[in-house]
Amino acid sequence: MPKGYNGRILRVDLTEGRIWEETPDERVYRLYMGGSALSLYYLLKELKPGVDPLGPENVLVFMSSVLSGAPIPGVPRYTVAARSPLTGAFGEAEAGGFWGPELKHAGFDGIVIKGRAPRPVYLWIKDGKAELRDASGLTGKDTGEVQRIIREELGDERIRVAQCGPAGERLVRYACVLNELKHANGRTGMGAVMGSKNLRAVAVRGTGKLEFADPERLKAIGKEVADLIPQSPMARNFKQYGTPVFVMPLNDSGILPTRNFQAGIFEGAQKISAEAMNQTILHSTKGCYGCPIHCKRVVKVEGKYATDPEFGGPEYETLASLGSLCGVDNLEAIAHGNELCNRYGLDTISTGVCIAFAMECTEQGILSPRDTDGIELRFGNADGMIQMIHKIAKREGFGDILADGVKEAARRIGKGAERYALEIKGQELPMHDPRGKKGLVLSYATSPTGADHIEAPHDTSFMSETPMLYAANPAGILEPMPAVEIGPRKIRLFVHAQQIWNFFNSLGICNFAAAPYSAFTLPLIADALKASTGWNTSLYELMELGERTVTMARLFNLREGLSAKDDRLPQRLFEPLEAGTPREKRLTEEEFREALRLYYGAMGWDPETGVPTRGRLAFLGLDWVELSA
Amino acid sequence: MPKGYNGRILRVDLTEGRIWEETPDERVYRLYMGGSALSLYYLLKELKPGVDPLGPENVLVFMSSVLSGAPIPGVPRYTVAARSPLTGAFGEAEAGGFWGPELKHAGFDGIVIKGRAPRPVYLWIKDGKAELRDASGLTGKDTGEVQRIIREELGDERIRVAQCGPAGERLVRYACVLNELKHANGRTGMGAVMGSKNLRAVAVRGTGKLEFADPERLKAIGKEVADLIPQSPMARNFKQYGTPVFVMPLNDSGILPTRNFQAGIFEGAQKISAEAMNQTILHSTKGCYGCPIHCKRVVKVEGKYATDPEFGGPEYETLASLGSLCGVDNLEAIAHGNELCNRYGLDTISTGVCIAFAMECTEQGILSPRDTDGIELRFGNADGMIQMIHKIAKREGFGDILADGVKEAARRIGKGAERYALEIKGQELPMHDPRGKKGLVLSYATSPTGADHIEAPHDTSFMSETPMLYAANPAGILEPMPAVEIGPRKIRLFVHAQQIWNFFNSLGICNFAAAPYSAFTLPLIADALKASTGWNTSLYELMELGERTVTMARLFNLREGLSAKDDRLPQRLFEPLEAGTPREKRLTEEEFREALRLYYGAMGWDPETGVPTRGRLAFLGLDWVELSA
Repeated sequence: MPKGYNGRILRVDLTEGRIWEETPDERVYRLYMGGSALSLYYLLKELKPGVDPLGPENVLVFMSSVLSGAPIPGVPRYTVAARSPLTGAFGEAEAGGFWGPELKHAGFDGIVIKGRAPRPVYLWIKDGKAELRDASGLTGKDTGEVQRIIREELGDERIRVAQCGPAGERLVRYACVLNELKHANGRTGMGAVMGSKNLRAVAVRGTGKLEFADPERLKAIGKEVADLIPQSPMARNFKQYGTPVFVMPLNDSGILPTRNFQAGIFEGAQKISAEAMNQTILHSTKGCYGCPIHCKRVVKVEGKYATDPEFGGPEYETLASLGSLCGVDNLEAIAHGNELCNRYGLDTISTGVCIAFAMECTEQGILSPRDTDGIELRFGNADGMIQMIHKIAKREGFGDILADGVKEAARRIGKGAERYALEIKGQELPMHDPRGKKGLVLSYATSPTGADHIEAPHDTSFMSETPMLYAANPAGILEPMPAVEIGPRKIRLFVHAQQIWNFFNSLGICNFAAAPYSAFTLPLIADALKASTGWNTSLYELMELGERTVTMARLFNLREGLSAKDDRLPQRLFEPLEAGTPREKRLTEEEFREALRLYYGAMGWDPETGVPTRGRLAFLGLDWVELSA
Repeated sequence: MPKGYNGRILRVDLTEGRIWEETPDERVYRLYMGGSALSLYYLLKELKPGVDPLGPENVLVFMSSVLSGAPIPGVPRYTVAARSPLTGAFGEAEAGGFWGPELKHAGFDGIVIKGRAPRPVYLWIKDGKAELRDASGLTGKDTGEVQRIIREELGDERIRVAQCGPAGERLVRYACVLNELKHANGRTGMGAVMGSKNLRAVAVRGTGKLEFADPERLKAIGKEVADLIPQSPMARNFKQYGTPVFVMPLNDSGILPTRNFQAGIFEGAQKISAEAMNQTILHSTKGCYGCPIHCKRVVKVEGKYATDPEFGGPEYETLASLGSLCGVDNLEAIAHGNELCNRYGLDTISTGVCIAFAMECTEQGILSPRDTDGIELRFGNADGMIQMIHKIAKREGFGDILADGVKEAARRIGKGAERYALEIKGQELPMHDPRGKKGLVLSYATSPTGADHIEAPHDTSFMSETPMLYAANPAGILEPMPAVEIGPRKIRLFVHAQQIWNFFNSLGICNFAAAPYSAFTLPLIADALKASTGWNTSLYELMELGERTVTMARLFNLREGLSAKDDRLPQRLFEPLEAGTPREKRLTEEEFREALRLYYGAMGWDPETGVPTRGRLAFLGLDWVELSA
């Protein structure tokens, strides 16, 4: 009997309406642990390369971890994964909140879903049992209604609902999976995969108790982390301001993406800052499972941009993507846009980038209101931004073009629009301008999911701040490193940081609760894993898990036909900026190519092709993966 | 002020008779820590490639570690390193005992020695001061006399003397460095390098107290390890039998090297076993600094093979090399041979392999007593073995030919003698027949020092025993693996084990006191490092140190002109055995080549050339190493 995890994976064949379960070997749990890595284990084993991401053959995984559900802060996240309809590559997104731990308490560690239901269904899981239920009545309804209806139908207000919204039903390629109306598995279009499978929601309720190897030690770790939080400057920041705390420092450093990455400084930054939010629309704060930091903002707006607190509030990424990136400095409009994205089930980052792209095309004369349903899509047009969210989610008019993502939209628009499409591998850039954070170019360029802020650290230069550098020491990160550095020493730091970020993604750990950012130290995480499972483990095993995760995603993409030439940056990132990082501090194409070669080699991949050597796969226990279809 | 270490490296220029000291950055201590890695740091920085190993330009390093001298069991070892006169490659050997910790208490972490003294000298270090003293009166004297004279001259019986013997003075290419007459830095001819520099001894006395970051925690760790010893089957074995405990199990498995690796089973094994020793010649047992295991045997023989307990007693490697390998089953003769090697300062492994080689050449008719000074060198001739030890050490007659090592001897003898020269990179094979332990072929073939039992695990199949496998878990070793396996999963295990072995070599940790063999667990070692230095470290950093060590040694050898083609095995290892591992369980050449490719790739080296990628060097913080001269 495993400790800390259930040893049960729920299997669903939607085409046949069949549900069963299986128990993987303990070895599988130990090598892959959960989240990204365990999802990739199933995808590499069971997904045939080259299938239509929106067809029944795609495999959709909801994956918790061996540590999730333990009574400690910092481990609320879970993964949704599949082949991405946005990129054709590995699709994956993490969400915090309560859904992952709830699944654990309901007796399952993850769900592997295949096929396509003949008509809309939702999956209902309660305390070790699962069934598919009719969801025809939910079609077209917004996420708030769907959650209410499911809870009413099943008679339990405490049911946790993960769902795609109407945007997912309509196969918007960056539709998200939304948990309890506010925690999003945001990126790579996992909501569209749900929609394509006619799976509107996964509703979970678990009242079971997980058994842990050393509950006393877990309790002590929980207390230790809680005690560390007030001592951690970043944890205090997150508690007081949430992720919006980043707006002003990024603007001050010239790296707040502004007007579709034309500038790194936004004149309206103050108005959309954490400080402004706290003084105006902030209604309350919320935490995730077990976490006392409560970084989640809940906002309330009345009037024109009325915003319902039930849908949470904008994170930093949303403030920038619907705000500075669109030239919008109206905090209430951004809050309302955030609510709409959550109602429809849209990824706020991709949505903002698509709209900002259209705005720049308009400014450049490539698009005019004739093309955009009469809306004058210019930077700063908050109402235009709001209107476009509706249109994208409904695939209505010009929204239908943007609903396929900025890369495909640019292709269809033509006239040189590609130049304004800020994407990598087809996924829209997140909200940190990598021109001023040279380590970040590697994150964005090499992320298997396309430009993504969760695959690798936002900014490895944060390690130059003493408390964070110290906290990163046990993972082999010893030296401060300026943001503009991109030589071998930055590669060293980057790969180590990437290992941390990726074992977080596989264990369900939140970057904002854990070191090096925050309070839950890396050795304590290893201790928690040990206390939870009883395994004789260490941080070493976790760092290796991080590398294993990155490498499995690389293998996934190679199987899907991606190669080193897909590890690229949009041309704009080498072009001059209106305002922001000065030219002499910016990345050159030559630096970028050299950094890529070093990165590949550092990973044990061929320095030119970026293909992992068979030897490194053996080292990681991945020799079973077939690179060819 | 650093904790746990002195922050002082003693520098000696023998040519000029100049002594000074330097303080490396804390970053250097943290990345390299001591032993192998810190020695390699100095060699790669300061040794010009291509110099004569026995010339004044060679750099000779005596290196303790940041953890050495802490009041805990299991960290007694220190490293002597230089370019090897036996192999032309990286030369390095570890010794236990007390010398390393004594150096730490004398105020230094290591010694870097250059040049050649105009006449014989010894280095005297006491409590932060150092001087070169005349050693003309010591020339030609055996190690016992030299130690006595130095102690008398300096008036302190507690002085720890590391010295080369007369064999080192005469530049026998496998002369060792001997500590207190019984602990040898045995391999790769470091004694010859001392001899070539006219440096007869390094005498050390330290009464200083090291300051530790957390002395209470260190004390608790020491107690915890002491408590673990009686619970560890191997630690109990080592306590009762020492390393001779291996004789019978290896013989029973068919891998006890016998008659120059013609067989893996020795009919006289019982007579040279640990059990026999305990019942006959065992006089007492001794431990190393801080260690209650006391695995060191002290033997006493009277009569023909009179053996003085002052010189300790034979380890397993010596029982096999002077015993089964020469077909000698006379335990007293082996004990006497061991004493002679210690008196002269000869590596017992290389000495035994050279003699066994000559014996086989005699059996094959390539040599006759006319060539070998009238001695009939046939297997089983114990007195011939003893006579040859004298002749090798004195470079007398045929001994002069064997004194250059088996590879050079075979070249000079010609007539196909190469076939019987069991060496890799010019160093004689240690005493585990790799035909029955397929992981061991990688240890031997790829070891930067040539065939060597300290560079990587003897036998990764030991991990199939439950307590050891469990103890290795925190280092990512999770699966049992049979000895005859050599596929990707064995490569995974091997590289992990190699990382452990190599961070041991860099921290001064003894394999017989530490996990996975024995009681000092891997996480506790990381804790001890933390308590000693105050660094916020973890097992992860140590595993990376292990990889860094292996990679630095690889870089050293590449600079010296070695390449993948030097990672080879003697042909005999693919040939039939008289008795031992059956053919179907033995390694094929094809398996070996495939294993090499996987190993290179696993290390982040080019799978064909075995050259580390620049990216992996960046990952390890080694981008400063120039591969070209």
